[in-house]
Amino acid sequence: ELAEALEHLLSDRPLTGTKILITAGPTREAIDPVRYLSNHSSGKMGYALASAAKRLGAEVTIVSGPVALSTPAGCQCIAVQSALDMRKAVMSEVAKADIFIGCAAVADYRPAQQVEQKIKKSRDEMQLTLIKNPDILSEVAALPNRPFVVGFAAETQDLEHYARDKLSRKRLDMIAANDVSKQNIGFNSEQNALSVFWPSGETKLPECDKHSLALQLLDVIAEQYKEKQDAQDRRKDTGSTNR
Amino acid sequence: ELAEALEHLLSDRPLTGTKILITAGPTREAIDPVRYLSNHSSGKMGYALASAAKRLGAEVTIVSGPVALSTPAGCQCIAVQSALDMRKAVMSEVAKADIFIGCAAVADYRPAQQVEQKIKKSRDEMQLTLIKNPDILSEVAALPNRPFVVGFAAETQDLEHYARDKLSRKRLDMIAANDVSKQNIGFNSEQNALSVFWPSGETKLPECDKHSLALQLLDVIAEQYKEKQDAQDRRKDTGSTNR
Repeated sequence: ELAEALEHLLSDRPLTGTKILITAGPTREAIDPVRYLSNHSSGKMGYALASAAKRLGAEVTIVSGPVALSTPAGCQCIAVQSALDMRKAVMSEVAKADIFIGCAAVADYRPAQQVEQKIKKSRDEMQLTLIKNPDILSEVAALPNRPFVVGFAAETQDLEHYARDKLSRKRLDMIAANDVSKQNIGFNSEQNALSVFWPSGETKLPECDKHSLALQLLDVIAEQYKEKQDAQDRRKDTGSTNR
Repeated sequence: ELAEALEHLLSDRPLTGTKILITAGPTREAIDPVRYLSNHSSGKMGYALASAAKRLGAEVTIVSGPVALSTPAGCQCIAVQSALDMRKAVMSEVAKADIFIGCAAVADYRPAQQVEQKIKKSRDEMQLTLIKNPDILSEVAALPNRPFVVGFAAETQDLEHYARDKLSRKRLDMIAANDVSKQNIGFNSEQNALSVFWPSGETKLPECDKHSLALQLLDVIAEQYKEKQDAQDRRKDTGSTNR
């Protein structure tokens, strides 16, 4: 049944003519020339989304942190290291995008100071001051001509509560949430399951491999993106009739 | 000339019957279930040394931090994450080793506390308290029946001074030093050059690919290892004559 639905979707190519910008992977925040802060994101979900979006007809650009994955055929990839690099790349690309999917696990904090020379170890204890990184997803959602904005949430508890909170607080169009407390899914694994929320609805995509899941999620995105477009077109029409 | 020397070395297999334990790659120090501290070591030099040692006849075990490399054919690999994991693996393997090569870029510090749940970002600034990790190289060198101990030094300035200081302070048998301030060699590159120091001598291995360099370094190690063995045998002989 899933296989049939996916095949139908692929023959349909519902994203033809759509430009999608996807962030993927972790970011690395330099402490000095050799040391850094990072996280366990493998980039697999973001790359699976890019590959699926391409197969569904979209023009795809990935802004990717350091990962051990090759760029899916036909996609453009901009490789970055830090959250600040990622923001810069996203901001220079986002004007062209119809849909933005923030799938990267951007480091929340970076070292307040970056040292030019390798720090010599001497003291038994060391204090590292961290400052907050920019919230790229919120910044994209706050743009005057914003694309359709999809965020991700990785939670260890109260999935729906935190996901719906993030959806409204960051003014996203959609959020895909997964429970990273489950051992076999999520970060750095091949399988995943997602709960997807948008202001007026939700759907559950049950556990399967990341590539099938990516196709299903993009189908949901395409549907809600078109609905929003249609609603905007209706508003414009009404507007011109009234003038 | 280099090619000829390497060919001669390979036909000679001077490490036949020798057991070598090599640490390689970075370590990852967990902050919480998703975040960590690490460094830019690729593990390439350590893996090149393992591969070269195997080709020269040795029995090789690698204790490796997280890297994107496959274990060289015929070598045993124990995969670890943190410095504490690496110490544990090294200490359980080192009694069997004739030669220990500490090539891993072990994180000098780890977070003082490791949090079980993902930390929620809230404050604009955050203090991370780091404490010193064990010095695996010094601990191996301090063992009663220690193997021949080779360390590495990555320096950005005063190469010989810092390398010789580390050699004597940690009571190593040999140290291989490279200047990581040079753009094209060292960390995460294919090329490298080394200055090798031991208590009574030194040699320079000029820039070449890491595999040729590894063979040359193991040749120097094999020579000094045998010299030390012979000296110990002579002392034993003298000892028994005197009794």
